Amino acid sequence: MTTRTEKDSLGEYPVPADAWYGIQTARAVENFPISGRAPDRDFIIAHARVKIAAARVNARAGWLDERLAREIERAATAIADGQYHGEFVVDRFQAGAGTSHNMNTNEVIANLANVALGGERGVYHPLHPNDHVNMGQSTNDTIPTAIRLAALAKLTRLVSTTHDMARAFDALGAREQNTVKSGRTHLQDAVPTTLGREFSAYAWTLKRCARRIQDTAIDLGELGLGGSAVGTGLNTPPHYAKQVCTELALLTGEALRPAPDLCAQMQSMADVMQLSAAVRGLALELTRITNDLRLLASGPRTGLAEIRLPPVQPGSSIMPGKVNPVMLEMLNQVCYQVLGQDAAVAAMTQAGQLELNVMMPALGSALFDMMDWLTRAMTAVTERALAGIEADRDRCRAYAHASVGLATLLNRAIGYSAAARVAQESEASGQPIADLVAAHGLMDRQTFADLVARAASGDPS
Amino acid sequence: MTTRTEKDSLGEYPVPADAWYGIQTARAVENFPISGRAPDRDFIIAHARVKIAAARVNARAGWLDERLAREIERAATAIADGQYHGEFVVDRFQAGAGTSHNMNTNEVIANLANVALGGERGVYHPLHPNDHVNMGQSTNDTIPTAIRLAALAKLTRLVSTTHDMARAFDALGAREQNTVKSGRTHLQDAVPTTLGREFSAYAWTLKRCARRIQDTAIDLGELGLGGSAVGTGLNTPPHYAKQVCTELALLTGEALRPAPDLCAQMQSMADVMQLSAAVRGLALELTRITNDLRLLASGPRTGLAEIRLPPVQPGSSIMPGKVNPVMLEMLNQVCYQVLGQDAAVAAMTQAGQLELNVMMPALGSALFDMMDWLTRAMTAVTERALAGIEADRDRCRAYAHASVGLATLLNRAIGYSAAARVAQESEASGQPIADLVAAHGLMDRQTFADLVARAASGDPS
Amino acid sequence: MTTRTEKDSLGEYPVPADAWYGIQTARAVENFPISGRAPDRDFIIAHARVKIAAARVNARAGWLDERLAREIERAATAIADGQYHGEFVVDRFQAGAGTSHNMNTNEVIANLANVALGGERGVYHPLHPNDHVNMGQSTNDTIPTAIRLAALAKLTRLVSTTHDMARAFDALGAREQNTVKSGRTHLQDAVPTTLGREFSAYAWTLKRCARRIQDTAIDLGELGLGGSAVGTGLNTPPHYAKQVCTELALLTGEALRPAPDLCAQMQSMADVMQLSAAVRGLALELTRITNDLRLLASGPRTGLAEIRLPPVQPGSSIMPGKVNPVMLEMLNQVCYQVLGQDAAVAAMTQAGQLELNVMMPALGSALFDMMDWLTRAMTAVTERALAGIEADRDRCRAYAHASVGLATLLNRAIGYSAAARVAQESEASGQPIADLVAAHGLMDRQTFADLVARAASGDPS
Amino acid sequence: MTTRTEKDSLGEYPVPADAWYGIQTARAVENFPISGRAPDRDFIIAHARVKIAAARVNARAGWLDERLAREIERAATAIADGQYHGEFVVDRFQAGAGTSHNMNTNEVIANLANVALGGERGVYHPLHPNDHVNMGQSTNDTIPTAIRLAALAKLTRLVSTTHDMARAFDALGAREQNTVKSGRTHLQDAVPTTLGREFSAYAWTLKRCARRIQDTAIDLGELGLGGSAVGTGLNTPPHYAKQVCTELALLTGEALRPAPDLCAQMQSMADVMQLSAAVRGLALELTRITNDLRLLASGPRTGLAEIRLPPVQPGSSIMPGKVNPVMLEMLNQVCYQVLGQDAAVAAMTQAGQLELNVMMPALGSALFDMMDWLTRAMTAVTERALAGIEADRDRCRAYAHASVGLATLLNRAIGYSAAARVAQESEASGQPIADLVAAHGLMDRQTFADLVARAASGDPS
Repeated sequence: MTTRTEKDSLGEYPVPADAWYGIQTARAVENFPISGRAPDRDFIIAHARVKIAAARVNARAGWLDERLAREIERAATAIADGQYHGEFVVDRFQAGAGTSHNMNTNEVIANLANVALGGERGVYHPLHPNDHVNMGQSTNDTIPTAIRLAALAKLTRLVSTTHDMARAFDALGAREQNTVKSGRTHLQDAVPTTLGREFSAYAWTLKRCARRIQDTAIDLGELGLGGSAVGTGLNTPPHYAKQVCTELALLTGEALRPAPDLCAQMQSMADVMQLSAAVRGLALELTRITNDLRLLASGPRTGLAEIRLPPVQPGSSIMPGKVNPVMLEMLNQVCYQVLGQDAAVAAMTQAGQLELNVMMPALGSALFDMMDWLTRAMTAVTERALAGIEADRDRCRAYAHASVGLATLLNRAIGYSAAARVAQESEASGQPIADLVAAHGLMDRQTFADLVARAASGDPS
Repeated sequence: MTTRTEKDSLGEYPVPADAWYGIQTARAVENFPISGRAPDRDFIIAHARVKIAAARVNARAGWLDERLAREIERAATAIADGQYHGEFVVDRFQAGAGTSHNMNTNEVIANLANVALGGERGVYHPLHPNDHVNMGQSTNDTIPTAIRLAALAKLTRLVSTTHDMARAFDALGAREQNTVKSGRTHLQDAVPTTLGREFSAYAWTLKRCARRIQDTAIDLGELGLGGSAVGTGLNTPPHYAKQVCTELALLTGEALRPAPDLCAQMQSMADVMQLSAAVRGLALELTRITNDLRLLASGPRTGLAEIRLPPVQPGSSIMPGKVNPVMLEMLNQVCYQVLGQDAAVAAMTQAGQLELNVMMPALGSALFDMMDWLTRAMTAVTERALAGIEADRDRCRAYAHASVGLATLLNRAIGYSAAARVAQESEASGQPIADLVAAHGLMDRQTFADLVARAASGDPS
Repeated sequence: MTTRTEKDSLGEYPVPADAWYGIQTARAVENFPISGRAPDRDFIIAHARVKIAAARVNARAGWLDERLAREIERAATAIADGQYHGEFVVDRFQAGAGTSHNMNTNEVIANLANVALGGERGVYHPLHPNDHVNMGQSTNDTIPTAIRLAALAKLTRLVSTTHDMARAFDALGAREQNTVKSGRTHLQDAVPTTLGREFSAYAWTLKRCARRIQDTAIDLGELGLGGSAVGTGLNTPPHYAKQVCTELALLTGEALRPAPDLCAQMQSMADVMQLSAAVRGLALELTRITNDLRLLASGPRTGLAEIRLPPVQPGSSIMPGKVNPVMLEMLNQVCYQVLGQDAAVAAMTQAGQLELNVMMPALGSALFDMMDWLTRAMTAVTERALAGIEADRDRCRAYAHASVGLATLLNRAIGYSAAARVAQESEASGQPIADLVAAHGLMDRQTFADLVARAASGDPS
Repeated sequence: MTTRTEKDSLGEYPVPADAWYGIQTARAVENFPISGRAPDRDFIIAHARVKIAAARVNARAGWLDERLAREIERAATAIADGQYHGEFVVDRFQAGAGTSHNMNTNEVIANLANVALGGERGVYHPLHPNDHVNMGQSTNDTIPTAIRLAALAKLTRLVSTTHDMARAFDALGAREQNTVKSGRTHLQDAVPTTLGREFSAYAWTLKRCARRIQDTAIDLGELGLGGSAVGTGLNTPPHYAKQVCTELALLTGEALRPAPDLCAQMQSMADVMQLSAAVRGLALELTRITNDLRLLASGPRTGLAEIRLPPVQPGSSIMPGKVNPVMLEMLNQVCYQVLGQDAAVAAMTQAGQLELNVMMPALGSALFDMMDWLTRAMTAVTERALAGIEADRDRCRAYAHASVGLATLLNRAIGYSAAARVAQESEASGQPIADLVAAHGLMDRQTFADLVARAASGDPS
């Protein structure tokens, strides 16, 4: 590999000759050969936008030459548009607080801009990565800001995907609203309900989870940008914090504003943690719902078999003809990994010390992954599993009528204790409750059948 | 122990003769000798209130005799007022979904009411625990409702305590607003800030955490009560769900309303999980803040020693005169246990199956403990540690002027690279940045001193 | 309350007149009104034994007057025998490292001993809590030692209980070794197995978990006692660390020895963490096994219903005659709380700083609870649930013959692809595999039946 | 993209024309577009080795044609040697239990072998992926086996790396064994110790953690291979389980043997969980140690500054000359992510149901990542941070003599209470303990100095 030599405060260091990044990035690549994973795409973009916004405000304040600002903006815009992402080469596990990523961005922009201005790579003139690209900024404020912006971008997609899944459940709920089945509590026979009610409840819960995730966007839009080092706003032009938020709002379309306490926003990852917790909340409910679906689809002969999932691939390498709920199993796995990511985010949230939290790069990465993975897993499940669910209505109805839980319908007529004796007789003899009700003259068959129907309808009175 | 014999659908069983509870409670005591811990007080009260509300609505609907309803209300009110709590004897780890606690309440009320009506304990006439006290209800809806109500009661106290602590930090922040010190990022010398700004930031963060906890009250006020078994409202009188909420709102002073989807609210613990997550969020920030305070108070000779905590007890059994930050250490420990409780709540949240979550008793208990413990720990710390914090202002000032981070103030004048050389010279030689600035003629002493003061003030421009 | 006044380095403070504890305990009671929970019983005992051992060694070294040593031993022995536990009044959330508990023990022993020697409570003469009872010790070494000893006591009980449960499963496994049923993988029809094999596998796994817990006893027996403050052994007589271990080994019957690196053992909770992790390992497997049992027992009409659990209490307040798997649900809940406790222990393990971990009191408490609760929950389940499990052998056999997974038995004869077509025909038509095998002349009925039997037997070749 | 068309039991499906994988892999690629991450390298290799071992045993039993076996072995060996890894294209979040990865391997081998035998890709003749490559196997046994083998490979590397780091600390410990400093407990002044003792303690703890990780290898070597579907050994030749273990032991050099209970090993991930827990144990200790090092290195002017870390890159984008402990911060971040991975592994471990755990692919992936990342992070820290640590011995000594904790050395001479008064006077007046000891005539200066030296030496008697 051909290299050029650059120099920083620690001395000289080789950089690949054709790299747009520079010496500090090269050092970081050498220092951190950990996961082999490049930065998150939304994060690269968000951080580049911070540079655009800062350059505009610095130029307006007269702190930054207009021409330099224009070239910074041009280069950063290319990155924000998806170009040069291959130049972002520092591992996700890197310098605390993300200095290496910040410098990676500063260097790529500086080199692109200098070359555009007739300079050459690695010679930081007329543009210097720290003095110009990073002007008025600190890793301490650009990185948490970029984490927030990237999270907001992902949040929109996750919420939308969650609504898509909720819609699929609502459609199933409407379709199966009259599919009477036995409820099960404690996994034991309970009173009648409908399959539609179960699906609709899933939809309702997912919408609630989506709303909670969406609600975290408000605080995420509160930026510590402008705090520069330790939240004091050192080396920033007047009104910088407010103006840079306005620029970023224009660039991202998000509702952004400066944090009232820049120092607190630099210390604390609480806003990001809230998002992680809301995503965890969704994963916990999805785990439950997915487990339910796999249970309802158990069979075909040895399980509950109330629903059938569409086959998407052969299920087994040894058992021919087996079809497994693979899409749901995949979602289950993703949800469990989401719980792990959230645990990591939580551990990193409490690890801030004094003016700064130096766990930010990994914290952001953990959050980004959990959001992306969950979004894609939910989309896949909605499209490839939920869309094709079929109900075995006969089987559902048979369960409803077989359930010992039907004895509950006798409570008002004969009291709990007497009804318990009917239930026990049914369980011991195997006779359906309806038969015993008739045999003992407790109620005529039709009256009891009406009770069952009304119970299932959810309008029992 | 003298006993009486009672009978249920499983047969006869002895009950202590003077117990107000009955056979199902006695069976549960025998079945669950696990933690030896009685139910949470707020939970006992909340569940008794559910019984009052149900009796009122059932009577109004003409389903329950007025006289019986009155006696149910009288007995349940006694419990809600703190009487008979010794009769709640079932372990916190008990029957899934809390049937045992529900029956404990039903039996205590039935026996109290029957005796008041001239009957005797253990003879469930004229009032029957299931047919009358539990009328229109199921464990499936009364227990999650009581969990929500108990959580709301605790939430109010926790939020109030969090605001108390925030106020204490705000007072410290105001008092020390001019105490210039060195900021520290990565635990390394950074640019100047003030002690007041640090304290105020803690206050700000705590208020944000409090708001998040408070926000969860809205969804917690949405009750599944009236769903009875599996959320269908079976065996409830018309308009029961709405009316019973109104009664409970009157009894508790909370903003309560029926859930739009009773089935979903019975399946899902997501609303409670959200509260647990918000409390976790607070604990994570408190861990960080408490760690910071212990670090700032480290010393007296071998640490940072920027602040002094009031001594509340001798610190060591072997080291005489040692004073340790024991109140803060206690809070750290509580916060870590809060994380554990939240992990348990999360694990139980995902464990719901089909129509019900049978992990509710332990889930509620874990939540109740974490809220109570944290509330009390924060109160103790606010009163016994924060109130007496003193600052060593001389030491703070000395750090500010010694910090190598002051080189940052040269950035605009001489650029990052040149400033780095000054910093390196300072570190190698031990000379303060201010001296080097003067020695190299970079700036006159007063100008630099003004820069330091302005940087610390947070109004650097 | 009548009080006496005592004095320590912070000044005077009232102590209940009839308390055996003293001023530092009284201060701690006031400082830490958090959980209201007294210390763990095994921990009180273990810590008292440390005092006995230390007194013996100190006397032998000539550092402690024989008469004083004898009285220390007498008082501490009473505590170790279960007396005076009501005098241990400091909350579980207390001073970091457990100074308050150490002083509570020192004070109770000093007062008991002084009164026995003709002195009076609160006048620490001739015995002083720090100078004599605590001689050669520090909270830094007595508390982690007591945590280890208490953990070892609980470990023995937990391992024994786990073996009891394993034996119950082994008995069920032997009894049902010929109960052919369908295996289920992915909750879908699979090839035949036996109920006995499932039960035996649970036994095998539990024994492995028990062995892992037992294995942690070796490292737990390595004591940091003798390190006194910061692990240097300051203020201890010659050979103290070795001799005090020998005494403790005699007192506890455990295999104890001094840690090779006393400093490391004072910093690190890794040995205790390993135990917590092993208990977590057990809880994770128990969660799985318990979930399986509840699934196999689901029904009676709407579930798998392969096994029946003994009824121990009526299952529902509204559904008459319902019997729920309440013992198993209780165990599930305990297991989830165990996961929470382990998460707390882990968080506290990483929180040590420099020479000490000041999270020990809560860390120990979290560990003690998880072990006690799990031990009792397992005992209850073994006695009240496993002992009475019945199999529905007809139903098991029916599932075995209905399973579409039987197509796998055709692999060797006709290949995977052809067998898949048979499976698909069976699923679509509802005809059993055996019928199709015969209908298509793939194999004669008896040959296929023999294959099924051999497959189930686990000796298929 | 040119495609060929293949067919399986679900119908036809396009496959890239030049792919060595086949239809089931292609379906899985389409089904699971989740993380974009290919399988772990060690896992691909381990799984290929399972195919080699099975082919050998099947051929020896006469179940598989020698020529076919030879070609399977040839193709699988190429994979095990690192070739064709680009053909392993199924996402890490995939079909439960890993059927997709198993089929990916089966198809690549089948196609490679068929082409070698003169056939063509996608025409599974003479070799069929299920009938021949997968003969005697099931995803249920090959995947957990491959997880174990991959884990063992990583375990060796992680243990070795941990020993490397321990050696580095041991070297530092030896070098600084006479560097007297003040111990700190509760972050407060304590008695003297040495920097060497601290470093040596870290080494000792790391070696213990390494031993725990190593110990898990024993159980990991116990393979469920040969259980085929549901652990019954269906469709395996006689003595298959034993022979296939022997072959794998030869191929891997690991101590492998068949599990005594194949059914249990198929249900349970406990052996893998134990490894995850041991790695977590290491991460928790590393978190503590790394936090300690960052604290000891805090400064240069505003922290403890007892040690200096080698600079590896400029620390800040805004603060010139700043050098941060970036290597350690990176390790902290990795450790927190390791905690998250372990949480995910634990959640997936408990999620097994009946005969199988369908969370295996993600479980394995989470484990693999945590091991690889930690190994690489530790290596980087050992090489780039520990190797260059320097001590500020003067500063250490100054702390030792300034510490108020020196009052402890007076305990034996004047008792705890009197010593406490000296400590309090020192703290109030700022005078060193040594001066007060001399001033009050408690001991002559040299005697006290000797006490300090002996205390620090750890041989105080």
